[in-house]
Amino acid sequence: MKEKNKYLQLEYKPNYQEEIIATFYGESNGSLEELSEQVAGESSIGTWTKLTTLSDEVFQRLGARIFSLDKKNNIFKIAYPLSLFEKGSIPQLLSSVGGNIFSMKAVKNLRLENIEFPEKYIKSYPGPYWGIEGIRKMLNVYDRPIIGCIMKPKIGLTSKQNAQMASQIFANGVDLIKDDENLTSLSFNKFEDRVKKVLELKKKVEKKTNQKKIYVFNVTAPVSLMLERARLVKKLGGRCVMVDVISVGWGAVQELRRQNLKLIIHGHRAGHSAFTRNKKHGISMLVLANLARLAGIDQFHTGTVVGKMEGGEEEVCSINDLLREDWREFDQLRENWASLKPILPIASGGLHPGLVPQLVEILGQNLVINFGGGLHGHPQGSEAGARAAIQSIEAVQKGIKIKEYAKTHPELKVALNYWKF
Amino acid sequence: MKEKNKYLQLEYKPNYQEEIIATFYGESNGSLEELSEQVAGESSIGTWTKLTTLSDEVFQRLGARIFSLDKKNNIFKIAYPLSLFEKGSIPQLLSSVGGNIFSMKAVKNLRLENIEFPEKYIKSYPGPYWGIEGIRKMLNVYDRPIIGCIMKPKIGLTSKQNAQMASQIFANGVDLIKDDENLTSLSFNKFEDRVKKVLELKKKVEKKTNQKKIYVFNVTAPVSLMLERARLVKKLGGRCVMVDVISVGWGAVQELRRQNLKLIIHGHRAGHSAFTRNKKHGISMLVLANLARLAGIDQFHTGTVVGKMEGGEEEVCSINDLLREDWREFDQLRENWASLKPILPIASGGLHPGLVPQLVEILGQNLVINFGGGLHGHPQGSEAGARAAIQSIEAVQKGIKIKEYAKTHPELKVALNYWKF
Repeated sequence: MKEKNKYLQLEYKPNYQEEIIATFYGESNGSLEELSEQVAGESSIGTWTKLTTLSDEVFQRLGARIFSLDKKNNIFKIAYPLSLFEKGSIPQLLSSVGGNIFSMKAVKNLRLENIEFPEKYIKSYPGPYWGIEGIRKMLNVYDRPIIGCIMKPKIGLTSKQNAQMASQIFANGVDLIKDDENLTSLSFNKFEDRVKKVLELKKKVEKKTNQKKIYVFNVTAPVSLMLERARLVKKLGGRCVMVDVISVGWGAVQELRRQNLKLIIHGHRAGHSAFTRNKKHGISMLVLANLARLAGIDQFHTGTVVGKMEGGEEEVCSINDLLREDWREFDQLRENWASLKPILPIASGGLHPGLVPQLVEILGQNLVINFGGGLHGHPQGSEAGARAAIQSIEAVQKGIKIKEYAKTHPELKVALNYWKF
Repeated sequence: MKEKNKYLQLEYKPNYQEEIIATFYGESNGSLEELSEQVAGESSIGTWTKLTTLSDEVFQRLGARIFSLDKKNNIFKIAYPLSLFEKGSIPQLLSSVGGNIFSMKAVKNLRLENIEFPEKYIKSYPGPYWGIEGIRKMLNVYDRPIIGCIMKPKIGLTSKQNAQMASQIFANGVDLIKDDENLTSLSFNKFEDRVKKVLELKKKVEKKTNQKKIYVFNVTAPVSLMLERARLVKKLGGRCVMVDVISVGWGAVQELRRQNLKLIIHGHRAGHSAFTRNKKHGISMLVLANLARLAGIDQFHTGTVVGKMEGGEEEVCSINDLLREDWREFDQLRENWASLKPILPIASGGLHPGLVPQLVEILGQNLVINFGGGLHGHPQGSEAGARAAIQSIEAVQKGIKIKEYAKTHPELKVALNYWKF
């Protein structure tokens, strides 16, 4: 490679049909030009020193191009030729645009903010099997948020207790109940026992209520075990499995989808904040949401805005940014995207009935609202907690102020008094 | 759970045979006591509010216990009963001690610094099949670092060029050559073609030199494709495959080991710095190194100390910490650990012949030293670069100062003049 070959080509017009576009936030002790040059090299065909083995022809054909540089905001955009990528492989994509670059000496802070894919790259992925429409059809719930519940304590119930409590909560109107992220198969609550017992009682409650219900079984495990468990759920008539996408990794998530078991795949994101939380370094939730859609997750945990999990403890001025980020994720999960079905976003973490009006106002109706502590923590117990959750959504649907609705709905009243908001 | 139940129990003496011990660095706007309380709850059986479903008995049996709190250094240690964990599952472990905790409102910064496992937990994992001893035996190289080369450019050579260049580099004395992290199967260098062509020429060069060689094929991909490719390598007589452990994820890495193909598993860590680099938030490399050992990685990329990848750009005062961290990782990979074989550490990234004496002085002989740009960037080309790399290690082995040795070794001389150190 001759000295004149540079990745920085601000006059370049990217080809959105043939290139992957990555947007980075970056800080270094040098200039943004130098930083972007090193990021573009390391994530495509270059390294820290000139190579005798890198020809001009290869540089022209495969080199990444920095076509936009915003020094005021420390943002740069890189166009990568599709030839650098193996189609249908999230791991290979991440090893390139989300790989060594975070380790480079030149980097003080670096964040992968967004990735935009050409249609032909998107089409090399299956996307969700069910998506929003499929899930709503399965539940026969079209005109309101889907009401979810997380079993609590995360770990501690026996498989029998788990099944009985799930059945009671279903009977009180909840649509979907899920295992928590660290409950897989434990000595006192073996996966197989839980599936059998939960599904048996679920069938009864579905018959009794004449409503369809979804139980989300957590199959997070080394891959062969994960697939074995997913097949068991399918065999016994279950409708949905959950994976912790960060803990098992994208190679495993893609494999679960590839098996085409026609189960709803519920994506939990435990651990994401190790690298998404710092707004200056790591990878954004927006990128993760896009990867989830490619991989074929049907419903995915994304920002809760008002719940326990986002950075409300930080400076007030950052809250608007967080809100905006949450919005961006939700929007991209729902919009049209080549031929891939839209994912249903899940708001989960720290939610209780009092937060529902604000949540729906911000995020709309097209989501799952999960209640965990905000249901099992109800002073009158889990069943009353389920009713309070349902009532909070009824109030919103009817356009009645939640405190007004609580006057005639005692469980909601107790919840609103108990959890300040 | 009654108000009196607290996870903070500083009088508690942990049981190292029955509990997993996690060490955290933490910062919040409140006290360290409050933060540790929330971390211990969220990573075991608690949540943000009291639960009517959490009994005292379960709290006593399954609750995590904070048994150490160092306010000066913001460090706390938590003991988790083994019953909280599914044996042999890294994803389940991470969903617990490396999961939601990073997202909590109470957290300003949180870093999982270390995990210590009881022997009975460690024994639920296979560990490396080959380990240090097996790899050295395979190569018949016992008394010096193993000399590795990364093919460069990362992407751009055809499968034929790739095989020919690898053969020439092997012929000049290099022990091990590897694909780079983003080269998997691309239109001009298909995985199958590369394996066939490389292995064919490798056999010839092994015969000619009477030395054993290792080519590291990158099988990073969605799981079934990854396994298919690993089986092809095995079938065609290869000895080693590489996975980008962060990009494919631990569920996939564990599956590769479980297949027991008796291939050396080479662990690349592209992307780790998205969450390991910040010394106050995320997960430490030490933890990743331990997970790699459990999963059964035989040789693993860890700190290079002197290379391109560590944070030498940061304040001088942090360098000693970095050095110490590198040391810790290397030590733990090599020490005795229940019955699991030790992993061979790999120093990789920005290395060139001039850095070798310092590297060996710091890290010892028991490692792979990878040269990428520091070989293919040699002004006289890759073959001369390979000879310069070999010569740098010969100098160290013979106890001759590298500049002295360069006087009679022209390729080394050129390298030392070209790359300042």
